[in-house]
Parts: sequence; C-alpha cells; structure tokens
Amino acid sequence: MKIAILPGDGIGTEIVDQAVNVLNALGEKFELETAPVGGAGYAAHGHPLPEGTLKLAKEADAILFGAVGDWQYDNLERSLRPEQAILGLRKHLGLFANLRPAILYPELANASTLKPEVVSGLDILIIRELTGDVYFGQPRGVRTAPDGAFKGEREGFDTMRYAEPEIRRIAHVAFQAAQKRDKRLTSVDKANVLETFQFWRDIVTEVHQEYPDVALDHMYIDNAAMQLVRAPKKFDVIVTGNMFGDILSDQAAMLTGSIGMLPSASLDANNKGLYEPSHGSAPDIAGKNIANPLATILSAAMMLRFSLNKAEQADRIDNAVKKVLAQGLRTADIYEAGTTKVGTIEMGAAVVKAL
Amino acid sequence: MKIAILPGDGIGTEIVDQAVNVLNALGEKFELETAPVGGAGYAAHGHPLPEGTLKLAKEADAILFGAVGDWQYDNLERSLRPEQAILGLRKHLGLFANLRPAILYPELANASTLKPEVVSGLDILIIRELTGDVYFGQPRGVRTAPDGAFKGEREGFDTMRYAEPEIRRIAHVAFQAAQKRDKRLTSVDKANVLETFQFWRDIVTEVHQEYPDVALDHMYIDNAAMQLVRAPKKFDVIVTGNMFGDILSDQAAMLTGSIGMLPSASLDANNKGLYEPSHGSAPDIAGKNIANPLATILSAAMMLRFSLNKAEQADRIDNAVKKVLAQGLRTADIYEAGTTKVGTIEMGAAVVKAL
Ligand SMILES: CC(C)[C@H](C(=O)O)[C@@H](O)C(=O)O
Ligand SMILES: CC(C)[C@H](C(=O)O)[C@@H](O)C(=O)O
Repeated sequence: MKIAILPGDGIGTEIVDQAVNVLNALGEKFELETAPVGGAGYAAHGHPLPEGTLKLAKEADAILFGAVGDWQYDNLERSLRPEQAILGLRKHLGLFANLRPAILYPELANASTLKPEVVSGLDILIIRELTGDVYFGQPRGVRTAPDGAFKGEREGFDTMRYAEPEIRRIAHVAFQAAQKRDKRLTSVDKANVLETFQFWRDIVTEVHQEYPDVALDHMYIDNAAMQLVRAPKKFDVIVTGNMFGDILSDQAAMLTGSIGMLPSASLDANNKGLYEPSHGSAPDIAGKNIANPLATILSAAMMLRFSLNKAEQADRIDNAVKKVLAQGLRTADIYEAGTTKVGTIEMGAAVVKAL
Repeated sequence: MKIAILPGDGIGTEIVDQAVNVLNALGEKFELETAPVGGAGYAAHGHPLPEGTLKLAKEADAILFGAVGDWQYDNLERSLRPEQAILGLRKHLGLFANLRPAILYPELANASTLKPEVVSGLDILIIRELTGDVYFGQPRGVRTAPDGAFKGEREGFDTMRYAEPEIRRIAHVAFQAAQKRDKRLTSVDKANVLETFQFWRDIVTEVHQEYPDVALDHMYIDNAAMQLVRAPKKFDVIVTGNMFGDILSDQAAMLTGSIGMLPSASLDANNKGLYEPSHGSAPDIAGKNIANPLATILSAAMMLRFSLNKAEQADRIDNAVKKVLAQGLRTADIYEAGTTKVGTIEMGAAVVKAL
C-alpha cells in the first residue's frame, strides 16, 4: 500500500515526521513517498501543487498531509499561494466528504474556554462538503457590474451552486455516519435566504427517506453558530456545505480548546482520502520542537481506518494517544500545571513506545 | 418626530409594548404609528411586508421593530414567509449598516457558557453589511446546470457580489465607529478563496488610508469564528459582509449568554434606521409574559441616539436598564438564584420607574 506523504510548510514537516515514525512502528509494509506541497512546492517547483506531487497523490492509496502556509508566500498572486495546494488536491482527487470530529479528551477538559459542564464529553462529527459551493463555483472574478443598483461599478463576484448529485452523495455519507453513532443528523443551511440551500434542504429531506432510523433536523447556519456556543453537546452529526462547514468545523474544534488534538479526513467516492490535522501550519512556532504532533498522528489512524482497511492498527494508535495523555505528557499547547511538558519529538516517541 | 412601530410576531408585540411605554415616559413628543409586519402582515394583508407598512416605514424618521416568524407561516412559499419582511425593509430602505454590540453586563457574567475570565468585560461591536452579498445578488434560483462537472443536472444557485461603493460605505461606517472606541478594526473575509472577498479586502485597505489613527487587521472568517471562542475580548470593532456577519454576530451575541439583552441598529446613509432586538420571535414563549423586553428597550435607546439625535434620552434609558439589573430584577432567560424573577410587563414597568 502506497501512502503519499505531503508535509507542507511551517510545523508540517515536524508533525508529519512523528506520524511517519508511528506508521513505521506498526510493523506493516507501507510504501511511503514524500513530495513538497504548498509554499514548499512553490519553492521547489514554482507551484504550490507541483505536477509530480499531484501525480503521486493520484497514484497513492492515501495521503498524509501536514499543513500549508507561511508568511513568505503571502504576497504571491492568489493562484500561487500555498492554500491553492489543498484546494487543488480536493478538487483534482474528488475529495468531497470532509469528516472532522470535535472531541474533548477528558484529560484536556480544562483547555476549553467553555465551562466544563458545557463541553465535558463533547463528541461531535462535522461533515463538510468539500468540492462544491461558492468555493469552486464558476463564474467568478472582478468585473464591471452588469446590472443592479451598482451597475457600471467595479465588483467582485462568485457563484454559489450545488447540484443535486453533489448534495445527495454528501447526504448519504452523513446519514451513514449518523447510523454508526447516535443516529441524529443536523443539516445546516440558510434555506430562508439562499436558493442554493433551500435546494440543499429539499434534497437532504429526500435522501432522509432512505434512512428512517436516523433523526434529521434542519438548522440555519446563524442558529447553528449560536447553539454550538450554547449547548454543543446536543449535536451528534452535522452536515453542511463547503463554506458553512469551513466556519462551523473550526468553531467546533476551538470549543475543545485543543485543536492540536483534532484529525480530519477528506474522502472521495471510494474512500480514498487525504488526512490532515485540523490546525494550520503555525509558522511562528515552526522548527522549535514545540508543535503538537497528536492531531497528525490521529489523522494517520483515521487513514488506516477509512482508506487502508486496517481498523485494528488504527485502534492501536488511538489507544497509544490516550495512554500518553493518561501518562500526563503534554505539548505546550495543552500543557497545564501538574502535567509534564514535552516537545514534538518526545511526544511522537512516547506514542511509538505506547503502541 | 415620527416613529414606525412594527411589533411583528411571537413575543414581538409584548416586548415592543414595553419599549413603547419607555419611549412615552420620556416626556418627548413622538408620533408613534403601528403597523403589522411578518406573519402578522401576511395575516392582515396577505403579505409579510404590506404596502401600508412599507409606506409608513419610509415616511417615519425611525423604525422600532420587534421580531418576525411563527410556525404557522413556515409552510408558505418563500416570498410570503415572515423573514421576507425584514429582508424587504433592509433593501427598500437602503439599511446597509447593521450595528450589533455584543456586551456582557457584569451582573450577568454567569449567564455565559464561557468561563468568566474569557468573557467578563466583553464589549465588541459587530458591523455587518446588510443589503448586499449573496443575500440579494442576482441571478439566483434553481436551474439545469449550464456547465461544470454536473452539467445537465438540477442545481440551486446564488450570486455573491460586492461592488466597490458598497464596500467603501460600510468601511467608512466601521472606521468611524472604531474611532469612537478603542480604534481597532478587524475586517473579516475569505480572501484566500473568494474573489468577492479579495476585492473586499483590497477596498477596505484603500479606505484605511483615510483613517490612519485606526489599527486595521484582516482575518479569515473561519479564524474569526475560532478567535471569538478562544479570546473574544481581543476584538474591538469587527466589520464584515452580510453572510459572514449573520453568523458572527449571532455567535458573538451568544457568547454573552444573554441575547435577550442585545439591541441592534440598521442604518441607511443618512442615519435613518431600523432598531430591533438581536433575538428572534420565540413563538414558544409568546403571550406568556416571560420574554425579556430589555433588548427592545435598549434598541429604542439606540434609536434615540443614532436616528433621533437625543443622546441624553438614550443615556437615561441605558442607565435605567443598568439600574434594574443592579436591583436584581431578572426575566426568566437571565434569572439565577439570589435574583428576583419578573415578567415582561414588570420588567418594562421597572425600567419606566428607574428612568
Ligand atoms: C486554507 C483554506 C483554503 C481552507 C478552506 O477554507 O477550506 C482551510 O481553512 C480549511 O478549512 O481547510
Ligand atoms: C431572518 C433572517 C433572514 C435574518 C438574516 O439572515 O439576516 C436574521 O437571521 C438576522 O440576522 O436578522
């Protein structure tokens, strides 16, 4: 089995290194191949998603991704900026289903800015559609307004759109995920304002007929952002579009106070996937051996489970992570008095040892 | 001075009644005229924004609005649903600048789901553009996809667009608001993905040159949703588009735990405005004398300040509200042990008395 390793920028290299150590320690025969992406891709080949990197990603059975973005690339024109790499990978590989768990580890309950009773035991799964919506809709650009109250003025514009099969396939993923959990699905939209999301609501409601065992409710995005603050534990699985999912999944991750612990999976129709931590490239702490590698290590576990059919090995990693937390080991981002502060490398080594 | 009173649905009537009592108690000569809106407008005249109501709103110097929406209107076709009233008023009256303070009253610090140290003293002002963006952009609808990967399939679509003058005018409002506060403005966008919001960022940056005393920073919407959870007190003034503002302003309001306390103003280019509580119509508690009228009373104070040039009277109301809180009076939504629970009417009467 071939795994593409795309470390990217900032802390990407360090955290992916530790995840690779963990993968290597499992005693399986994986073929790992590394390629540059993001700013590193631009530096090496003049493009954030170099041809060779895309080719490798296409060939591989799964992709382990670090993070992209670094200040030095901020002033490049948009099409060359690091984030185009991740957008390009999603689109080229058809990774339409983004699964982002927001879980609060009992040992890290204090890390949250929310009161313990509001978040303890939090376990939400956010499913974000990842290849459609206003992220990719054409036409888009800057033009002279062709009509409306500002006709003749310069304007920026984008197109929000969702086709029926796009909504259907992500709805199926969401209902099936809910079936494996508490069987409650909240579809988040803005049907009271947007045609796209009235259509979304209609199709999700249709697909629901195939999953009578799952309780479905619909919630407006503004209300969802409020309920995530007010009573986040009421949610089980949330499904939503690309734009709303970008916002809600980050908000939900931050509720836990430990975004350095949260993995994510982006899957295509055949469960081939790209796996990456939910956090970013944090260039300010890069190269200092202080980044938390656990989100990436847990992403590798998700990869084993969803794309490589190695659920047992995935469990081994998940348990090893729980063990190091129970041992009191903490990187700086989740450190509190009474625990042991360790670096990126030490944390990775501890997980390997705990396997 | 003529004030249009539009109570709307659900708890709208009750809370607006109390705000009207407060206005009447000021000893000023206001001409108040009431008209039905939302579900009540539909029930009376077959449309959520009846012609007579719109005419009154246009003639008036300011509008005091309750809330719209009730289950019995949920199955009407979209163009007849209650929320069309508020969208219509914004658009017809050119109310492009929505000001929503998120303030945590010291007496209500416990109401928040966030830890006291994270939110105590919270005082953010969110400025949301209110007449543009994907809310109103044409074209929109359901069609057969004309191109793209799902060509020929049914799709829902909307157009996100912002013209230069639209961005300029809201930026001016935001910079000027920041000048009166801590002189820090955060513009929230998604410039890394959307053409509309790269354009937004460019124009806001240009307008900044006219306000060198204000510190401007740009933040992506997903990061803003995270930072509002992580460290909300770091913000002073936030400016953003209609869609992102809908989400962020509700999230910020909920951080306080007391959305029943938060007023809002929607202003046109001449500071004529519509004033409404930040919360909704809560049909589940309508007619029970338990809704909190303070957000509406504080909205009336904003109206005096921004549209009617009566800052002193506005201060009187603000102080009266502080007084009743200090007296320990609480409606059910903000009640806690050791305080005195009162109903909608009693709370309104207490504010009148405290004036
Ligand atoms: C980097 C950016 C384009 C990306 C997105 O908006 O999808 C990121 O925020 C994410 O959520 O993975
Ligand atoms: C009712 C709805 C159309 C409205 C909006 O989305 O603007 C509401 O959520 C608001 O924020 O005033």
